[in-house]
Amino acid sequence: MTRKELIDQIRKKKSFLCVGLDPDLNKLPRHLLNEEDPVFSFNKAIIDATAPFCVAFKPNLAFYESLGSTGLISFEKTVRYLGSCYPDHFVIADAKRGDIGNTAKMYARSFFDFYNVDAVTLSPYMGADSITPFLEYKGKWGIVLALTSNKGCEDFQLTVDKKGCRLFEDVILKTSKLGSPDNIMYVAGATRGSLLADVRRLIPRNFLLIPGIGSQGGDLEEVAKLTLIEDIGILVNSSRGIIYASQDTDFDTVAAIEAKNLNEQMAELLS
Amino acid sequence: MTRKELIDQIRKKKSFLCVGLDPDLNKLPRHLLNEEDPVFSFNKAIIDATAPFCVAFKPNLAFYESLGSTGLISFEKTVRYLGSCYPDHFVIADAKRGDIGNTAKMYARSFFDFYNVDAVTLSPYMGADSITPFLEYKGKWGIVLALTSNKGCEDFQLTVDKKGCRLFEDVILKTSKLGSPDNIMYVAGATRGSLLADVRRLIPRNFLLIPGIGSQGGDLEEVAKLTLIEDIGILVNSSRGIIYASQDTDFDTVAAIEAKNLNEQMAELLS
Repeated sequence: MTRKELIDQIRKKKSFLCVGLDPDLNKLPRHLLNEEDPVFSFNKAIIDATAPFCVAFKPNLAFYESLGSTGLISFEKTVRYLGSCYPDHFVIADAKRGDIGNTAKMYARSFFDFYNVDAVTLSPYMGADSITPFLEYKGKWGIVLALTSNKGCEDFQLTVDKKGCRLFEDVILKTSKLGSPDNIMYVAGATRGSLLADVRRLIPRNFLLIPGIGSQGGDLEEVAKLTLIEDIGILVNSSRGIIYASQDTDFDTVAAIEAKNLNEQMAELLS
Repeated sequence: MTRKELIDQIRKKKSFLCVGLDPDLNKLPRHLLNEEDPVFSFNKAIIDATAPFCVAFKPNLAFYESLGSTGLISFEKTVRYLGSCYPDHFVIADAKRGDIGNTAKMYARSFFDFYNVDAVTLSPYMGADSITPFLEYKGKWGIVLALTSNKGCEDFQLTVDKKGCRLFEDVILKTSKLGSPDNIMYVAGATRGSLLADVRRLIPRNFLLIPGIGSQGGDLEEVAKLTLIEDIGILVNSSRGIIYASQDTDFDTVAAIEAKNLNEQMAELLS
C-alpha cells in the first residue's frame, strides 16, 4: 500500500487506529478452544468486528511462533484472510527482525513475497544492511524501532553519544536516509511523552507507528498533539485494550465497542 | 546443556566448531529438490556428515521462515532430529529476537518449550526486559548480539557515548549482569580484529559465538589468539564455507572434509 492510499483510508474513516492481533491461548475466550484453529477463529472475529473502525492490523509474530508451525499456519491464514477480505487495510508483521544483509533478504522475501504483508517492524542494532533489503519492494514498508514503549527503552536507546545525539536519534538520522517517507516508518512509544516531539522534529514527514496507549499507559490526546501532521503521519496501535476487553463469548462485540470508542476520539482529534 | 557439559564436549572432540544450517533453495544441490522435504533432507545429510567434527549446530530462522509454515516444519524436523540423534550437540536458534517483556516471554516459550533448543540469539536494542525472559530456563542460554560481523556493525555498535564507552561495550556491561557465564553468551564477529580482545577483556568468562570466518573473511588463528580462555569460551561458526562447499551430489562428503579441516586446525589451537 502506498503512502497516499494509507492517508486516503485514514481520512475516509477518520481513524488512524491499528489493532494488534496478539492471540495468547491463555487469554482466549474459553469457548473458542474447541474450534479447529482457535487462533484464527479469534482473529477472524476480532478483524470482522473492528475493521470498520481501524485502518491497520498488526499481528505480532511471537504469539504465533510460540505455537510452532501450527501457529505459523494461523498467522498465514490471518494475513491471507486480511488480503482477500480487507484489501484496504494496512497489514504490519510485527517481527522486529534484524540480521546481516544476506539473511535480511530472506526475511524480506518471507514477509513480502510469501505472506504479502505491507510492512515489517525492524530492529536497527545491526545497521544499514539489515534494513535496506526491506526497502527494495514497491509499495512495501520497513518500520524501524526508534523509541520503544517498554522500560528497557532506557537501557540503550536514550544513551547520549559524544556529539550529544541520543541513540534513537542517531538511528532515525542514519536510517531515514536509506529510504524515504514513502517506505520507512518508525516505532515511537506513546509512553515516551515529550521525546515524541523530538522524534517528530527529526522526521517531519515519516509515519510513526505508536504503541503503548491503553494497557501500557500512554495518552491518545497527548500523543496526537505531539505527532499529528498535515498528512496525518501516525498509526496508533492498541492490542490488549481491544482484543481482551472481554474474554467471554461477547469478546468481539466488546472489542468493536473499544475500537469504535478510539475511532471517535481520533475523529475528533483529526477535525 | 550446561556450561560444563559444553566444555566437556569441546575437550573431547578438540573442536569448538558450530555448523550453520542456512538452507537456501537456490543453493541446494539440484537432486535434492525432488525430495518431499528438500530442506530437511539437506540438513539431515549435512548434520550426519559434520557431527563428528563439531559441537554445535546453528539454524538461522530466516532461511526457514522465507518458505512460510512449510519452512517452519523443516526447522522443527531439524531440531527434533538433532535432539533425538545428537543430544550431545548444542543447538542454537539464530533468530535475533528482541521484544517487550510480555512478548519476549512468548518467544522464549517458543524456542525453549516448543522447539527445545539450547540457545537463542537476541538483539539488545529494546533493553533488559527483552532479554531476561530467556534467562529463566535452566540449562538454556541467551546469546546477545554485541559486535556483529557485517558492515552495518559500524553504524551504531561502535558509537562512543559521553563516558567513552562504545555501544557494544555498554550492551555487554549492562546485559552481563542480568545473568552469568552459565546462561549468557555474546555474538562477536571474527571480522572485528582487535575489538575481539576488548570484548574478551570485558567478559573474561562468557562464551562468545563467533561468526565470520570463511566467506566473510575472518581468520581462525587470530580469533583464537584473541578470545580463547582456559575454559575454551568460544564457539566459532561456519555456514556457507561448509554447507555449500559443493553444490553437487557430493555436498555432504565435501562438507565433512571442510568441517574436519576446521576441526584439525582447532585441535592444534587447543593443544
